Amino acid sequence: MLKRNLNLNLIPLEDALFKYFSKLEGLLKPGCEEISIKECLDRITLTPVYAKINSPHYNASAMDGIAVRSIVTNCACESNPIELKMNIDFINVNTGDPVRHPYDAVIMAEDLIEHNENFVKIIKSAMTMQHVRPIGENIKAKEVILPEKHKIRPIDINVLLSGGIRHVNVFSKPKVAILPTGNEIIEISALQEGEEPKEGVIIDSNSRMYEALVKQAGAIGKCFAPIPDDYNILKDIILKAANEFDMVLINAGSSAGTEDFTVQVLREIGEVIVHGVAVKPGKPVILAIVNGKPVIGTPGYPVSAYLSFVTFAAPVLSVLTGNKEKTARKIEAVLSEKITSSVNLREYIRVKLEHVNGKLTAFPLVRNSSVAMSLVKADGFCIIERGCEKKEKGETVIIELIN
Amino acid sequence: MLKRNLNLNLIPLEDALFKYFSKLEGLLKPGCEEISIKECLDRITLTPVYAKINSPHYNASAMDGIAVRSIVTNCACESNPIELKMNIDFINVNTGDPVRHPYDAVIMAEDLIEHNENFVKIIKSAMTMQHVRPIGENIKAKEVILPEKHKIRPIDINVLLSGGIRHVNVFSKPKVAILPTGNEIIEISALQEGEEPKEGVIIDSNSRMYEALVKQAGAIGKCFAPIPDDYNILKDIILKAANEFDMVLINAGSSAGTEDFTVQVLREIGEVIVHGVAVKPGKPVILAIVNGKPVIGTPGYPVSAYLSFVTFAAPVLSVLTGNKEKTARKIEAVLSEKITSSVNLREYIRVKLEHVNGKLTAFPLVRNSSVAMSLVKADGFCIIERGCEKKEKGETVIIELIN
Repeated sequence: MLKRNLNLNLIPLEDALFKYFSKLEGLLKPGCEEISIKECLDRITLTPVYAKINSPHYNASAMDGIAVRSIVTNCACESNPIELKMNIDFINVNTGDPVRHPYDAVIMAEDLIEHNENFVKIIKSAMTMQHVRPIGENIKAKEVILPEKHKIRPIDINVLLSGGIRHVNVFSKPKVAILPTGNEIIEISALQEGEEPKEGVIIDSNSRMYEALVKQAGAIGKCFAPIPDDYNILKDIILKAANEFDMVLINAGSSAGTEDFTVQVLREIGEVIVHGVAVKPGKPVILAIVNGKPVIGTPGYPVSAYLSFVTFAAPVLSVLTGNKEKTARKIEAVLSEKITSSVNLREYIRVKLEHVNGKLTAFPLVRNSSVAMSLVKADGFCIIERGCEKKEKGETVIIELIN
Repeated sequence: MLKRNLNLNLIPLEDALFKYFSKLEGLLKPGCEEISIKECLDRITLTPVYAKINSPHYNASAMDGIAVRSIVTNCACESNPIELKMNIDFINVNTGDPVRHPYDAVIMAEDLIEHNENFVKIIKSAMTMQHVRPIGENIKAKEVILPEKHKIRPIDINVLLSGGIRHVNVFSKPKVAILPTGNEIIEISALQEGEEPKEGVIIDSNSRMYEALVKQAGAIGKCFAPIPDDYNILKDIILKAANEFDMVLINAGSSAGTEDFTVQVLREIGEVIVHGVAVKPGKPVILAIVNGKPVIGTPGYPVSAYLSFVTFAAPVLSVLTGNKEKTARKIEAVLSEKITSSVNLREYIRVKLEHVNGKLTAFPLVRNSSVAMSLVKADGFCIIERGCEKKEKGETVIIELIN
């Protein structure tokens, strides 16, 4: 019988992150790749992007109308209309047409009093370069058009193209191995639609959630088939994953179960930096390094698995992807009821927000971390910091909004 | 010489949207499809999703420890430790293991005083169902787990799987044809890297921006090759696109250029509901219907093209995709300088936000709609409503944030 890991030495969240990131320093090396402009939406620029050409690259009419020699329009006014001759004093232009010597200004179609094939009449003079977009008005060649570590938006694609850019250097998407563990875990594809698994058998619901979270973080997740509770098999798979992937997530087996080999395996093949953090849900998380790669073991209950990802995996991925971490929007609300919490833990209480008598009110939901539906229904988290034992009914609290 | 469309009858934005959506009523029919759970991130549920199985589907141990017959633990206390016999009074369980008759409660490993292969000692009684997750604790079979028109998040994937769901009915992604027009327009792929086009030739920078905006809206854009200024060619392509796609975007040719055939073509083959809206940038937009499909003609300058999409195409796509329209976050700032605007137009001024003397201050950027870089650099829009001619320096204004 394997010894249980009964006594986790829980350390505060900040200390855990500090220890882990100190050890990871120099190890997290974001990759880069050159991609086509057609694929660059939401990718992160690795370096500043410099325009290759001017936009516009010639003096261009900004309006539909006529290009004129401004000098011949000088004295035009209502009491002194001036007639201009086609191909001598003016030519017709549409928006975007070049305005070339001897023409140096544009008069809008709307401002022409008469207009036929041979002449136009105007009653206002035109200034030099009026309604002409000068070379480089939008973008100057060699100008920085996008900074580094910038997430490319649709409007950015517009200026990249106008600046003559066809390829962009971006952070490559790190690859994350997602390892479900446990004899009791099956993939849903092993069942018929609507078939109930046998007693004791659990459908893997965390791996696909992780795959989606990894995708949202700008990386690529690969879900492995469930790994049986076998020390050597687990060891071989983690070693292989830590060789081939940029990061490894192991779920679950981070706790004190008799078959929870993960931490022993990680100690043998790498370094366990942290095992146990003073947060709830999510206490038994393992932060390790194998083969220079971050390997994170997370607890199995869905809410714990989710929060462990957000708290520990997301900041690591942020370094690897170049993506800025999303900071949750916060809002004030009053508590609908008293909450107590362990003074030693930072606790995340899921709450539903409702307006009651004109006040935004936070209703705590079920606290079991096995109840994923509480997170589905939640509007946000009320975080009870370590050192705080309770929040009173009616107390104003900060809610971190989900989404 | 084709007649120029000099006099657009500009109507207010609200009226334009009302007219267009009144005409579109009954025509916008979102499609649906059944997809695998593996592909459902960010898709929109068409109908509520009901759980097929309970989660857990058996009474499950919530802890690592022992499952006991609670009745034999009744009198345990510090002064009266009770010894329990393996396989008679208790069995070992890990989290997730079934708790079956005659066992009806779980005691955590941490609470066991002594523990070996044959017996354990306890000093606290166990209540019935203590640390047992009852059937359906997380999800009850037939319960609604996700509502309709819900954008599927990573945590939702978790509950879908636990509820035994392998396939989800979602809105299918509408297909949007993106038609660049104009003899002067070329695709960037027609150039060598860094090659400057000839004078008068313009790189198509709007189509790929539209493709990205369409993707962000939850639809699929297809960029067509630039269409020459030829009435019949344009007509044929629009007709074909309106047959094969759910929506058509035509850029540009909505204005008063001599070669702007778009509105004439649309009048011949469909119905032009609106031509010209009192917004700046973006005045000459065309809102039309061809073959029962929304067809929107947008101006060519990048900022106008962008705003026309956000203002007119996005709400149409919102109906087709089931996606809720994003509402921009708003923030107050003081203006760094006076802005004047036409009383007849709703104007979108791009602004950069900076803290000056502790006050969030909005600095207006270049207002030419040809300068896409002004939108790239902007933090938000200061909107000057129709009927308002100016905002004073130092005045507090509402800024609609970009992103």
